[in-house]
Amino acid sequence: MSIVIAVDGLGGDLAPDAVVEGMRLSKQRNRDVSFILVGPVDQMQDALGSDAELVSVVSFVDAPDKVGMEDKPSQALRHGKQTSLWRAIEEVKEGRAMGVVSGGNTGAMMAMAKLQLRMIDGFDRPAIAAIWPTLRAESVVLDVGANIDATASQLTQFTLMGVEFARLGLGIMKPTVGLLNIGSEDLKGRDELRDAQSLLIDCAGDNFHYHGFVEGNDIGKGIVDVVVTDGFTGNIALKSAEGTAQQVGAYLRAALSSSWGGKLGYFFARGSLRAFRNRVDPRRVNGGPLLGLNGLVVKSHGGSDALGFASALDLAIDLSRGDIVNKLAKQVIGLSQQAANTQERLKT
Amino acid sequence: MSIVIAVDGLGGDLAPDAVVEGMRLSKQRNRDVSFILVGPVDQMQDALGSDAELVSVVSFVDAPDKVGMEDKPSQALRHGKQTSLWRAIEEVKEGRAMGVVSGGNTGAMMAMAKLQLRMIDGFDRPAIAAIWPTLRAESVVLDVGANIDATASQLTQFTLMGVEFARLGLGIMKPTVGLLNIGSEDLKGRDELRDAQSLLIDCAGDNFHYHGFVEGNDIGKGIVDVVVTDGFTGNIALKSAEGTAQQVGAYLRAALSSSWGGKLGYFFARGSLRAFRNRVDPRRVNGGPLLGLNGLVVKSHGGSDALGFASALDLAIDLSRGDIVNKLAKQVIGLSQQAANTQERLKT
Repeated sequence: MSIVIAVDGLGGDLAPDAVVEGMRLSKQRNRDVSFILVGPVDQMQDALGSDAELVSVVSFVDAPDKVGMEDKPSQALRHGKQTSLWRAIEEVKEGRAMGVVSGGNTGAMMAMAKLQLRMIDGFDRPAIAAIWPTLRAESVVLDVGANIDATASQLTQFTLMGVEFARLGLGIMKPTVGLLNIGSEDLKGRDELRDAQSLLIDCAGDNFHYHGFVEGNDIGKGIVDVVVTDGFTGNIALKSAEGTAQQVGAYLRAALSSSWGGKLGYFFARGSLRAFRNRVDPRRVNGGPLLGLNGLVVKSHGGSDALGFASALDLAIDLSRGDIVNKLAKQVIGLSQQAANTQERLKT
Repeated sequence: MSIVIAVDGLGGDLAPDAVVEGMRLSKQRNRDVSFILVGPVDQMQDALGSDAELVSVVSFVDAPDKVGMEDKPSQALRHGKQTSLWRAIEEVKEGRAMGVVSGGNTGAMMAMAKLQLRMIDGFDRPAIAAIWPTLRAESVVLDVGANIDATASQLTQFTLMGVEFARLGLGIMKPTVGLLNIGSEDLKGRDELRDAQSLLIDCAGDNFHYHGFVEGNDIGKGIVDVVVTDGFTGNIALKSAEGTAQQVGAYLRAALSSSWGGKLGYFFARGSLRAFRNRVDPRRVNGGPLLGLNGLVVKSHGGSDALGFASALDLAIDLSRGDIVNKLAKQVIGLSQQAANTQERLKT
């Protein structure tokens, strides 16, 4: 089966060059993929250049306009039908692409995706899921940036989506779930977290195990398979971790070039250190799906370079290949009703 | 001048052993310090053992009770006058100690410190400041855990405290300030952040330069000298960074023991790598002062071992030596009134 991915050719700070170069890198790893590149056709053709192998798997959809990084979602919705972002999502809606990837404005992406693809019944808002490498394996962290806050009921919805994503995407049969908080004691943190905790204790069962509150340093340890949080907090956690990984890498380079022993050591260990560097490079885990929609939308970091954008494309291709989003929609459709019933019962 | 620090002998998961061992380590680096160890005297004497050098600089204050990590601040206040935390803070209030260090319950510490030491006029709540190592030098990040939320006006107060702390503690004459947010565009994030931004643009001047919003990955780059946020977000950012530093360290150890080249490289570079390891060890930057109080209170991480607790003691000793907290109180006392006036003017 051939995979078709729609690509927003104007999304992200380094578009379209990093976008096209990312397509080239991803194509080398995924022989069965073809792309629909969306943007002003002349500009897209220029950016694509003459690489015959890539040109042969790219088709174009014209979109003259661009959603700016500063545009409000409401603005983008009103005037945005001619933008590359809207039209790239439209390719998924119309069934011509199996997924869409964009490094553009997150708020506009969310609004346009909700309007065109619709939410799964019983779910309020999409959440962006990140696959977070841990000392044990990989965990799912959501939301990492779609919503600036979340009620207890929305945190429960994020949990259901995250659990299914961990099952379908990472193959974890009965995931453990933790709520991100500033302490593991039951009294800690904000009201909505304590309410969500009551709900999750009640909802847990065959589907997932509820572990309790987890702290920022528990994420990387892999204490739980699914870390649930609002999009403001999740985004800060993710970027703070990314920044630290880069910082530690810079310190290591400085240490190994500061003395003859360090330089000599680097010479012998360079193979191992290359593997290490790849492992901690945030660009290799770039991209997160907007869960909760009837269709696959992958958000790439706005500042990504070609390597980062290629990772987001790889992710969209993997998820398309496994038909993860459609399977997820089928699985969770009954669960949210169940959670809502639980909430009603807890209130009375 | 001799420095006297009160120490909560029952605060933290590994108390009293890690506390006493931390005192020993810190004493080795600070010849002019003496300690007042607060807790049940028999237990404290047992923990202290027979190290003559340490015994000679420790006096005891008896406190039979302990604040539990799960106790609510209100509970702790009502029944807590016999606790080691209350009585350790009392040593500062009564002028017998220049500062107090505890790894205990943050909420109780804040409530007891406010009641005994009082806030600086014009300031609502203390904020815990962390000194965050960056690629440029060091930045001040606050609040990292005293308050689970903060209004625009409180964020402005945190800014004034953080700016003075950066000036007095880090020697930065005109610090740059950023508000932690999920994007650098003006429209991003929560309402209180946008309101705080208007206030800060108006307050900035001779005292500090207001840079704008910063993201999680900007902290480690050292984009600004002072990063301002609420205590929930700041705590998640700090612990997420700590977890990542530990995770990257573990990956590096794995890489260097996975092959002969790695092992040989490690052998030659071990001196440089030891310096690197110290640099990224979160225990070496443990401890943050509760700013805004008329007195020095340093919060140590609840899970700290002896090395971590010693770092918190070192910080308290340095801040005492420079008389930083009293100087800060004098500096900011007029500024908060100025900020309040600005807020009134912006409203009208």
